[in-house]
Amino acid sequence: MAGRTWAFEDFTEGTVIDLGSKEMSAQEIVAFAAEFDPQPMHLDEAAGRASILGGLSASGWHTCAVFMRLLCDAFLLDSTSQGAPGVDEIKWKRPVLAGDTLSGRTTVLAARESRSRPTIGLVTLRSELFNQQGEAVLELSNSVMFLKRGPVA
Amino acid sequence: MAGRTWAFEDFTEGTVIDLGSKEMSAQEIVAFAAEFDPQPMHLDEAAGRASILGGLSASGWHTCAVFMRLLCDAFLLDSTSQGAPGVDEIKWKRPVLAGDTLSGRTTVLAARESRSRPTIGLVTLRSELFNQQGEAVLELSNSVMFLKRGPVA
Repeated sequence: MAGRTWAFEDFTEGTVIDLGSKEMSAQEIVAFAAEFDPQPMHLDEAAGRASILGGLSASGWHTCAVFMRLLCDAFLLDSTSQGAPGVDEIKWKRPVLAGDTLSGRTTVLAARESRSRPTIGLVTLRSELFNQQGEAVLELSNSVMFLKRGPVA
Repeated sequence: MAGRTWAFEDFTEGTVIDLGSKEMSAQEIVAFAAEFDPQPMHLDEAAGRASILGGLSASGWHTCAVFMRLLCDAFLLDSTSQGAPGVDEIKWKRPVLAGDTLSGRTTVLAARESRSRPTIGLVTLRSELFNQQGEAVLELSNSVMFLKRGPVA
């Protein structure tokens, strides 16, 4: 963990991290839905158009999974992350349609040292994904545990 | 939608719905992680044993996706669901390890008619998944929109 770029001390309040981008193909949307969320509007273009979503649209859980991959590639795999106990809130703000390109950012809302574990800090992140029109499609807040960089007193 | 088994009126407070069960194979855990959450403890048995999770363990998002599939098969695909605006809270209570068999239930916490849309009601669900030892691994709360069964006045 010593050589990692991101440790607890690097997540200061207000830090904004770019999450890069990912195009959502129809093939990927249907493959995820067939395994995990086989509702018609996630499997079929005509059923999507007939639904309130307006077209073949990704499962909200697929959007969350893509968010996780962007987070991994942006900084998490090069960090001292010790995992997350859960998620505080997810908002699926708009449909994610086949062909959309999602991009995003994560903002550090708060960072505090653990009272019980002196080697660890807890970082509260608020993350957002947008489509190619700049419209928010996903908002997500959660807290992640990171090891501290510095020697423990 | 008329022939569906589950409409808004069927989700009365306190109703408990069995979600069936699903075994989490090492192959499925690694396939999901390789695409969406390539952290070492989700990809490799030795890395998992070396982590605080204690073995090759599913991404928390994989557990959520499996929960969604169980929900679909238990009642959602045979319901008047109009989708969900998000998730209020997710708690990953314990690691889900390769070979674990998850089972679960959903409890109706509240059901109320929409003020703005007379054909719709909002149902608040609290869902739990357990491993084969009966230990909770996932808790999740959210609200889902369902069409009403009865004719609209």
